[in-house]
Amino acid sequence: MKTKLSLLACASILSSQLCLAQTTEQVNDWKPCPSNQAGKQYPQYNSEGRVKFRIAAPEAKSVGCTFRDSSEFKKGEDGAWYGYTRPLDEGFHYYAIKIDGAEVPDPNSHYFYGSSRWGSAVEIPAKDADFYALKNVPHGQLREIYYWAKSSNTNRHAFVYTPPDYDKDTSKRYPVLYLQHGGGEDETGWGRQGHAGLIMDNLIAESKAKPFIIVMENGGGIGGLRRTNAPTAAGGPTNTAPAGGPGGRPFNFSAFEKVLINDTIPFIDANFRTLADQPHRAMAGLSMGGMQTRTITLAHLDKFSHIGVFSGGSIAVTNITDMAAFKEKVKLVFISYGSGELGTNRAGGRGFGGDPKANTAALKETGVNAVFYESPNTAHEWQSWRRSLREFAPLLFKN
Amino acid sequence: MKTKLSLLACASILSSQLCLAQTTEQVNDWKPCPSNQAGKQYPQYNSEGRVKFRIAAPEAKSVGCTFRDSSEFKKGEDGAWYGYTRPLDEGFHYYAIKIDGAEVPDPNSHYFYGSSRWGSAVEIPAKDADFYALKNVPHGQLREIYYWAKSSNTNRHAFVYTPPDYDKDTSKRYPVLYLQHGGGEDETGWGRQGHAGLIMDNLIAESKAKPFIIVMENGGGIGGLRRTNAPTAAGGPTNTAPAGGPGGRPFNFSAFEKVLINDTIPFIDANFRTLADQPHRAMAGLSMGGMQTRTITLAHLDKFSHIGVFSGGSIAVTNITDMAAFKEKVKLVFISYGSGELGTNRAGGRGFGGDPKANTAALKETGVNAVFYESPNTAHEWQSWRRSLREFAPLLFKN
Repeated sequence: MKTKLSLLACASILSSQLCLAQTTEQVNDWKPCPSNQAGKQYPQYNSEGRVKFRIAAPEAKSVGCTFRDSSEFKKGEDGAWYGYTRPLDEGFHYYAIKIDGAEVPDPNSHYFYGSSRWGSAVEIPAKDADFYALKNVPHGQLREIYYWAKSSNTNRHAFVYTPPDYDKDTSKRYPVLYLQHGGGEDETGWGRQGHAGLIMDNLIAESKAKPFIIVMENGGGIGGLRRTNAPTAAGGPTNTAPAGGPGGRPFNFSAFEKVLINDTIPFIDANFRTLADQPHRAMAGLSMGGMQTRTITLAHLDKFSHIGVFSGGSIAVTNITDMAAFKEKVKLVFISYGSGELGTNRAGGRGFGGDPKANTAALKETGVNAVFYESPNTAHEWQSWRRSLREFAPLLFKN
Repeated sequence: MKTKLSLLACASILSSQLCLAQTTEQVNDWKPCPSNQAGKQYPQYNSEGRVKFRIAAPEAKSVGCTFRDSSEFKKGEDGAWYGYTRPLDEGFHYYAIKIDGAEVPDPNSHYFYGSSRWGSAVEIPAKDADFYALKNVPHGQLREIYYWAKSSNTNRHAFVYTPPDYDKDTSKRYPVLYLQHGGGEDETGWGRQGHAGLIMDNLIAESKAKPFIIVMENGGGIGGLRRTNAPTAAGGPTNTAPAGGPGGRPFNFSAFEKVLINDTIPFIDANFRTLADQPHRAMAGLSMGGMQTRTITLAHLDKFSHIGVFSGGSIAVTNITDMAAFKEKVKLVFISYGSGELGTNRAGGRGFGGDPKANTAALKETGVNAVFYESPNTAHEWQSWRRSLREFAPLLFKN
């Protein structure tokens, strides 16, 4: 059982119960989290970024949560179990509740797909939460679509964001961004926990970004998440990410690449009013989706002009075989990370292809329009990626 | 603790464990439920309609579920807990798992909004499941929308189904069905567990229904679910359902009625290519949504021409003040129930306004186009309502 360091320190001089109270209730400004189900008072957050849980489990022997360094849950005066996390980064975090060894969703939270399961997550309102707040501005639509893909021989399920005026002037055509989720996530991620629609609605309302269509497909489940059995691979840009991805084995994105290039893009261009050419097509993604973006765009520069990689590696000068052609075709390379991923060069250390900031600076030196963004005080998590979209979108399709 | 009758009966002659085995494993054709999260082997169903659960809770004292008459969960050889329901109606059922007194979602199932919470549900494939199966046919879109409502002074969240060819010919305009969920449910119900989109896609592909738009709003949460404090009410058709609704107190639908009439319909007519007149506007709903439909359409016959009430009461001849005007304006009154709600006149007994079958027959006698549908072998549950939509949709907007 994990215990907070602060708890251990004071346990030597005080009763652990008193110590727990001191440690966890010193900032007593708890409010219900916005990620709660309607009417639920718990979980709560405070201004330190701690989360306080309340679980009714009258006959349980032990209750806890999956956040590391969280306090042991204790029974309160009302008979329910209460527990606290350490201070967390502002933003969005997946978790589960543990009851006598069972890992289950918190019955108080909304549910999200991440960590390869539908389950709980908690939102700690960020200081800059306004950019994805629901406001009284014109709203686009998040459209759930099904279509048949020959490449996978299956029905595909995806989401398409259309901007606010899409249905007003039906002669107008729009650029398209293909926007991918991370490993263990799916096509629901960007629309749900990513707030992609609200981010775009607000940017467009403030004239900070041009209106464009966003397509959110599922990059896992057809090979994208399953790694090749080979312990190493040559790692050409077409089919594999750089060796040394999570788990030490390369991802294999070829199945997803085939669907995206041969089915998704043609379907979208046939069924939405797109500007169906390379100058008006972008791809971006987070973590695994960033690796997919890097792999797929570099192999298909005839199809994509704008590239966004969020917490998923970078593009080094040495990755580009024909720099003249690259510069002619690629109008933007956008690389981003949460500051917490960079502090000790962890991103490079995790095998995402070297120091992303240095790689991006070197790319810029050669004359490529390369932009690096660092999300302050966040790590490998959705607040970094919401901000990345906010920074990336205004740079798209400027000409 | 509840115990199955069959279990009690044989417990007198056999050990309860052997008996449990006999009772629950006699039809050993278990398959994973389609409502499971991807890759999850449990819950399972068998051809009797029983559901078998598996919950890993190593240190729990007791595990169970909220289905009445379900077996006590027991630890299997692998250390996980196993339990069984009685035979259930085919279709969709909400439930929760109980672990040492805590009621939590099953970590293996998808989550749905019903019983006033996001939580688990299990789908037992119905013999007629084909009509809402995902097929390789042209698909419409389920669009998530936000809009500002002056009546409630809030942003509203709704879903809009647009038929497959909606974006092909942008000069074509479509009729609209306003389709409401039940009590303790919300705007996600019809699109998610109701499969409204797939039902329409399949009907349209077989030329069994005309294409139309479906709008799914939230009829609770702004007064629709909160009952008036008055123990009884006069029960005029405008603001209240018949006295004697669930709980014994009348619903108050006036807040939802205002939003629907003054905000939702104008927003939809301004932002979708609708045929924005009474002959091309229908309303239907299930349970509480059926009561709302009855109340709101009878008060606004200038706005609605087609009326559908699924497991939510009926329209008696005595409810109609001006029969000549009603016959001129109303092209269809569709009333439906699950057979399990009718067997002992339970629907009438529950205060939904008398015998719905007799009321509908009497209405038909007066010359109204009144149709009654009885869903075989289902009760007050989604399989009844999916079938009701399948039967109702082909009757809409025929002229």
